[in-house]
Amino acid sequence: MRAVVFTQYETSPELKEVERPVPGPGEVLLKVAGSGACHSDVALYKEFTEGAPGSIPPGFTLGHEASGWVEEVGPGVQGFTKGDAYLAYGPIGCGHCKACSRGQDTYCENAATMPYLGLGLGRDGGMAEYEVVPARNLVPLGDADPVDAAPLADAGLTPYHAVKHSLPNLAGGGRYALVIGLGGLGQIAVQILTALTGATVIATDMKEDAMRRAEANGAVTVPGGEGQVAAIRELTGGRGVDAAFDFVGATPTIKTAQASMAQGGRLTVVGIANGVTEWSFFTTPYESTITNTYWGTIEDLHEVVAMYRAGQIRPEVERFAMDDALEAYRKLEAGELCGRAVVVPHAG
Amino acid sequence: MRAVVFTQYETSPELKEVERPVPGPGEVLLKVAGSGACHSDVALYKEFTEGAPGSIPPGFTLGHEASGWVEEVGPGVQGFTKGDAYLAYGPIGCGHCKACSRGQDTYCENAATMPYLGLGLGRDGGMAEYEVVPARNLVPLGDADPVDAAPLADAGLTPYHAVKHSLPNLAGGGRYALVIGLGGLGQIAVQILTALTGATVIATDMKEDAMRRAEANGAVTVPGGEGQVAAIRELTGGRGVDAAFDFVGATPTIKTAQASMAQGGRLTVVGIANGVTEWSFFTTPYESTITNTYWGTIEDLHEVVAMYRAGQIRPEVERFAMDDALEAYRKLEAGELCGRAVVVPHAG
Amino acid sequence: MRAVVFTQYETSPELKEVERPVPGPGEVLLKVAGSGACHSDVALYKEFTEGAPGSIPPGFTLGHEASGWVEEVGPGVQGFTKGDAYLAYGPIGCGHCKACSRGQDTYCENAATMPYLGLGLGRDGGMAEYEVVPARNLVPLGDADPVDAAPLADAGLTPYHAVKHSLPNLAGGGRYALVIGLGGLGQIAVQILTALTGATVIATDMKEDAMRRAEANGAVTVPGGEGQVAAIRELTGGRGVDAAFDFVGATPTIKTAQASMAQGGRLTVVGIANGVTEWSFFTTPYESTITNTYWGTIEDLHEVVAMYRAGQIRPEVERFAMDDALEAYRKLEAGELCGRAVVVPHAG
Amino acid sequence: MRAVVFTQYETSPELKEVERPVPGPGEVLLKVAGSGACHSDVALYKEFTEGAPGSIPPGFTLGHEASGWVEEVGPGVQGFTKGDAYLAYGPIGCGHCKACSRGQDTYCENAATMPYLGLGLGRDGGMAEYEVVPARNLVPLGDADPVDAAPLADAGLTPYHAVKHSLPNLAGGGRYALVIGLGGLGQIAVQILTALTGATVIATDMKEDAMRRAEANGAVTVPGGEGQVAAIRELTGGRGVDAAFDFVGATPTIKTAQASMAQGGRLTVVGIANGVTEWSFFTTPYESTITNTYWGTIEDLHEVVAMYRAGQIRPEVERFAMDDALEAYRKLEAGELCGRAVVVPHAG
Repeated sequence: MRAVVFTQYETSPELKEVERPVPGPGEVLLKVAGSGACHSDVALYKEFTEGAPGSIPPGFTLGHEASGWVEEVGPGVQGFTKGDAYLAYGPIGCGHCKACSRGQDTYCENAATMPYLGLGLGRDGGMAEYEVVPARNLVPLGDADPVDAAPLADAGLTPYHAVKHSLPNLAGGGRYALVIGLGGLGQIAVQILTALTGATVIATDMKEDAMRRAEANGAVTVPGGEGQVAAIRELTGGRGVDAAFDFVGATPTIKTAQASMAQGGRLTVVGIANGVTEWSFFTTPYESTITNTYWGTIEDLHEVVAMYRAGQIRPEVERFAMDDALEAYRKLEAGELCGRAVVVPHAG
Repeated sequence: MRAVVFTQYETSPELKEVERPVPGPGEVLLKVAGSGACHSDVALYKEFTEGAPGSIPPGFTLGHEASGWVEEVGPGVQGFTKGDAYLAYGPIGCGHCKACSRGQDTYCENAATMPYLGLGLGRDGGMAEYEVVPARNLVPLGDADPVDAAPLADAGLTPYHAVKHSLPNLAGGGRYALVIGLGGLGQIAVQILTALTGATVIATDMKEDAMRRAEANGAVTVPGGEGQVAAIRELTGGRGVDAAFDFVGATPTIKTAQASMAQGGRLTVVGIANGVTEWSFFTTPYESTITNTYWGTIEDLHEVVAMYRAGQIRPEVERFAMDDALEAYRKLEAGELCGRAVVVPHAG
Repeated sequence: MRAVVFTQYETSPELKEVERPVPGPGEVLLKVAGSGACHSDVALYKEFTEGAPGSIPPGFTLGHEASGWVEEVGPGVQGFTKGDAYLAYGPIGCGHCKACSRGQDTYCENAATMPYLGLGLGRDGGMAEYEVVPARNLVPLGDADPVDAAPLADAGLTPYHAVKHSLPNLAGGGRYALVIGLGGLGQIAVQILTALTGATVIATDMKEDAMRRAEANGAVTVPGGEGQVAAIRELTGGRGVDAAFDFVGATPTIKTAQASMAQGGRLTVVGIANGVTEWSFFTTPYESTITNTYWGTIEDLHEVVAMYRAGQIRPEVERFAMDDALEAYRKLEAGELCGRAVVVPHAG
Repeated sequence: MRAVVFTQYETSPELKEVERPVPGPGEVLLKVAGSGACHSDVALYKEFTEGAPGSIPPGFTLGHEASGWVEEVGPGVQGFTKGDAYLAYGPIGCGHCKACSRGQDTYCENAATMPYLGLGLGRDGGMAEYEVVPARNLVPLGDADPVDAAPLADAGLTPYHAVKHSLPNLAGGGRYALVIGLGGLGQIAVQILTALTGATVIATDMKEDAMRRAEANGAVTVPGGEGQVAAIRELTGGRGVDAAFDFVGATPTIKTAQASMAQGGRLTVVGIANGVTEWSFFTTPYESTITNTYWGTIEDLHEVVAMYRAGQIRPEVERFAMDDALEAYRKLEAGELCGRAVVVPHAG
């Protein structure tokens, strides 16, 4: 079968012929329906060098956002029907620590001794015709379109998890939320916030068209640049926002969020642009918190799929045939995509 | 000034001339903008007899849902400007117990020794040209219409408080809520649920037009009668609802709600039709709870006003001049009203 | 190897020679350290008849409370060292639904189509020399005594889960908890409550010595019979308890708990004596809830072990050799045990 | 009567004869039982200059930690009996905003237009023979010693509020808490944490005897200096603490706390030594938060009193007669006190 393989550091991946994998104990073979290309893939193959923090040694198929149809089950697996559509949860921890026991493999407590091998992140992922996935990582899609669903495994799950932890801050009338950075994750964050809360959602980005799309998703927008914080505060009647989500994570965006918080608000940095900020007692509104988050849980992904099936999450997707998989990555690198690139290995 | 006074048990109230009240220490005199007529008023003057449980001795002006403009402030009151519009929180507890300290006078801990005297419920209420209200009971309305706002003091606050306690049950994708009884409070409950949660809101009532209005507010509806529970469960994919609100509170409605619950769901009985049901371990979905609630807190009322100002709560109101106040009550008793009757003492 | 096998309904189990099991994919073979005998075992083999609700067809080794040392791992299992001690989480759901994904197999959503086979509850359990357990069901015991730990898998986990859901009700100063039924689970509930909360723990039982042991665990006690509710309320200064746990679950005990609740309190029925009670608006303190619960999650069991290792949970155990396993069940049936019977298959 | 009055900036207060105050509308006159001297008083009279941030113009009696017996009630006040003992909640906001409505006057939303006048912080406090307090600010002490209770109004309430917001982080087995700074507030924090949670409480300070007292209160201690963070982490088995409380708030103490956090932990800076730290995504354990807090709510103070009456909070107090009030402040400034200085104006 064909697969997009990360073969060496600092160059593009290869589209090549590989063996079709065989599901092991507890695993399921999916015939891939769609596979999303993500900026973090580019970091893996283009930016990192051997041994760099965050790097993963090459030699595996990319793709941590994939969906597909059950093709075959491995030993000991029950309860799946061939042809049923599923979305794959990418993180794979040790499977038996406390964090993994609640389906939060991202925070596996044995990561130091049992290095983390996520789908497309150390072990073969879904940017291929077939993919092997642990049975417990599969979330049923029912009759929903599996191609558009593919990006939800990361671009849906990551903002969902961040928002879910902030729902107590947004529970009730008269609340305000702020979304900084309106790429794929930020747009879905806006959709999730407008669906799950009654908050006024304030969105900001440097790109005009991203702001227009956020408005179509239900946000009010504030442009970047001078006066940005004042404009955000004015929309809140002066009190600031109850929850902020920074999908950029650069120093200036974190500082903008900090300056926009209300008492008791929660600021979650999701973007990993490695910004550094200052924190002090007197510049922090009382009981306002700042934190980070990474990806989500299997249970979260079930809820993301429920929102997708209810039309509350609507990913924007540009489809590519398997032949064009490397072109999808090229356009991603070049910033030429409108929406998430999804490779569709099996033409309909 | 004119006022609608509850003068004796088991007859209609009187529209009569009374002294305009003077604000005491810590109190504010409101020029009444609007005053809602409520079914519980009818219980007070028509149904109860002396000494009956729930009865309150006559001799006061009715009206526990009122708004108005600041006319005058009493000794020790600061921070109010004449002409500003406020909504009045009706409950008045001892003011210094733990429950009152958090603005939940409804659950005053000294009720046994300091009998509860709510606005229009033991002390003079807002069904008059002027009303005296403790300063801490006033919630600012800003530039929002104070007449339509009046019913929010009860018909908005009561469902809001019930819903707010259930928001954790509804926090996330794929949730379901059930509203039983689509009168004034039930309709606003539907509005609040669709605004504050992403849940599918299922609504049910015996009246067709009430169901139509609930649909316009964003609910899907299920008719009463045979097959009601099955139809509710089917809408939830079989798993039941995560939160139910029974605004009737009769034995059959409580049983319908019980039979519709999902694991971990919360059933809140708000209506006081005095239904009695059975509870047992094996007929209860695991960790599903049943409870009741009564009115709300001052903080809740601030949030109700925020939702009203944001257009998320839209009370349906039929206005009456002061001259027609008793006619308003007559129509209320006769079930001829469409929406809440609001008496407007000062013609525009 | 020897095992205590449930061979047919309505008679005692047999101590017999069986094949030593082999761990399959994703499974671990434990050399059993200790195995607790539980009243629910007696129900299985003595009380139920074929097809009765709650019955499980015979033909498996008993024991849903077991600990042991890793002897061998099955295909695909990593991260275990031979000889390390673990406690086994008994429930086994489908493994890939939303509930199982968070380690709450007790509430498996596919139970209807994939019948639940818990350890010692449909599939072979730990009342034997060796036991096969799915890797994800194993909780590390470190250097703690694995024999005394065995009962924690049920007699510790069940009250822990119930208490954990009530911790928000008990969070803060001036709180009160009530424990009804001071057998194995009730005593551990008292230990957990005194360790994890600042609440005054009120305990009640018909047996004097059970009350004395509860006092030694930090509770104040109230005898059953007339005046019981009044005595409980008096201890709370009249306001009632913020959380109640009924480990009996008979009609009178549920009613006692209901009559003892404070506003906003949470009553959890854990015991399955199938009591039936009445619920109505006016007999329920405002916002007080009633619910049930069943066993717990894998994550909970990690926390139970942490409390055991910290000396906060101290199971009372009576040890039996494998030869005396049936005698352990006999004493359990006869009510002659003081503490939990734990069978120790491998003499030290 | 005699009172300790803050008369001008940058010098000591005066013990002088002043008029006995008269309770206004909604107020109560207390005959003072005890009045605590606090470091923040010293900042007021000794450190601040006119117009400095945090300064309050002179001309009022000190004392924001006071208790006393009801002597007389003002107009409109009901439900108090002469001679009953109460503790006074010091903060006084506008009384009618959303924050004040829930008894959190510290976060009054009208502070900009209605400058905050706390007891002993802008308006006359309790360092006198008599003090006037708004009725809603009074928390009943029952038969508990009112003199030892006095410091609880700040030294008890402040750590209580901080801890209460962290209780969800500490709810369950296997949790760890860190207390930095073991002066009056820190010691009470240790008492509250050991009473209300099952967490291992780790305490640290530069002073040996403060560490000994923390141990007597149930903490394990770690000395400051090199290896401090490593020692804290080791006590937690490497994972870090679930809640940290920094009662110093200097840059090094905040950094120590940051480096000690577990995933999902909550770090609350209470001390106002104005430390500044850095925050970045990759140096923060996932979902760990940092925040601040200030004083507490009236409801919190009710719960502090409940813990005091239950013997769970045990303030260390050094008593001074009114004649020695200035000596109390002198010893406070010189660091010669062991425990909180409480002035007792009316000899027993």
